[in-house]
Amino acid sequence: MNPESYRVQAGRKVSLSNWSTNDHAGLTKEGSQVLMAPLLEELAEWQERLYAESQQALLIVLQARDAGGKDGVVKKVIGAFNPNGVRISNFKIPSEEERAHDFLWRIHAQAPRQGMIGVFNRSHYEDALVTRVYNLIDVATAEQRLKHIRHFEEMLSSSGTRILKFYLHISRDEQKRRLQARLDVPEKNWKFNPGDLKDREHWEQFTEAYEAALGTSTEQAPWFVIPADRKWFRDLLISTIILETLKAMNPQYPSITYDPRTIHIQ
Amino acid sequence: MNPESYRVQAGRKVSLSNWSTNDHAGLTKEGSQVLMAPLLEELAEWQERLYAESQQALLIVLQARDAGGKDGVVKKVIGAFNPNGVRISNFKIPSEEERAHDFLWRIHAQAPRQGMIGVFNRSHYEDALVTRVYNLIDVATAEQRLKHIRHFEEMLSSSGTRILKFYLHISRDEQKRRLQARLDVPEKNWKFNPGDLKDREHWEQFTEAYEAALGTSTEQAPWFVIPADRKWFRDLLISTIILETLKAMNPQYPSITYDPRTIHIQ
Repeated sequence: MNPESYRVQAGRKVSLSNWSTNDHAGLTKEGSQVLMAPLLEELAEWQERLYAESQQALLIVLQARDAGGKDGVVKKVIGAFNPNGVRISNFKIPSEEERAHDFLWRIHAQAPRQGMIGVFNRSHYEDALVTRVYNLIDVATAEQRLKHIRHFEEMLSSSGTRILKFYLHISRDEQKRRLQARLDVPEKNWKFNPGDLKDREHWEQFTEAYEAALGTSTEQAPWFVIPADRKWFRDLLISTIILETLKAMNPQYPSITYDPRTIHIQ
Repeated sequence: MNPESYRVQAGRKVSLSNWSTNDHAGLTKEGSQVLMAPLLEELAEWQERLYAESQQALLIVLQARDAGGKDGVVKKVIGAFNPNGVRISNFKIPSEEERAHDFLWRIHAQAPRQGMIGVFNRSHYEDALVTRVYNLIDVATAEQRLKHIRHFEEMLSSSGTRILKFYLHISRDEQKRRLQARLDVPEKNWKFNPGDLKDREHWEQFTEAYEAALGTSTEQAPWFVIPADRKWFRDLLISTIILETLKAMNPQYPSITYDPRTIHIQ
């Protein structure tokens, strides 16, 4: 499995139909379970170093269609981290006060502080996705917002925040299966929102809007298109990308300002 | 193990010397591991209901002396929850802006929203503990703050937030062992703060300040004194108390406003 092959190259025009939703790099579910346990342990170790160092931050952006698996990634992958060093931000429909500000105002307030991993479960990208599909903004405004997002992310990354953006890529059939399961299983009924069907009717328009959003992939704030029809592969691939990123950030335990040998505890 | 026996009764004067730091209710570490796995699973199940219902919130306050085990509880117990439904707030030394407001201002901003579990790793109680011990405030001010805290917590609980306050009770010897480990193990050096030794010199004054704080135990916002010399017992007891509390809150999956049988996904 080569994580780089799922990265959207900067400046490249994306056509999602060229990206697989069910690729599994030749791995099996059983095989992935063997890989996953030590991977999650290693993730937790590197997170401790990031937290101890407190000089850099990691921002993980999760975007997907309904039932795409954002909550699953939070539970399975982000759940491996020490909760002390993680902050999840769920961006829902903006409040009246949020709407009275620029669209990045509420986003910026949730940027992770040094040492932390911030997770955006939905994000500033919604402001160029759902709003565009339903014609709340025109094409020019959507493009302008994507430009502002690029600038915002460039500023964050030059201030010590690494950014990883994951688009969880599922097929139309897989979405149908998952939505149907929410109807069939009583304990899942609360997760079903009849509005999701309206988004589903606009499948192609959402595809186009996502393709435009994926155009914001840069060296500093790359997008990855994650084949997400298989939950286990999705989690394995995302865990691998986060681990490689943490290793590249190479956080260090801070040097101490005292000599442990000279301290005597009474 | 009877969780109620660790609860501070409302209106009762607390003398910490009467509370054990190494009680383990006759259990063994091995036995606790057998109990812990299903307990954490049940916690996660009840949390999902709380999150789905989104009508009530749970606030967990963690207070302890240095090396008392707050971070351990977050990692082992809070780590069992779906991170989507948890928000940890670490209250450190107040910033200039925070100091320019009343002491509850920054606390209130972190109160958990409906459906969420909020964890205060240190809390508003610090403003009547460390400040009191080092004479930054006088006795009358400390007492007044504790009164304000009672009123604040009463307001939160009558607005749908259940509050659990845990004092992790360790012995002076156990603290010494843990601080020494931070000096002896290089990867733990960063956790050692020479200032902790200053707090240790004021052991008795902190005991008195904690005893006063524990006096804010009420029916709605009880304090529990957790024997914390044994990490496994601390985690088991806290998990048990949280589980019983979630069960008593009895969150329900929300009733749905559509008929699943009539919906056909295209």
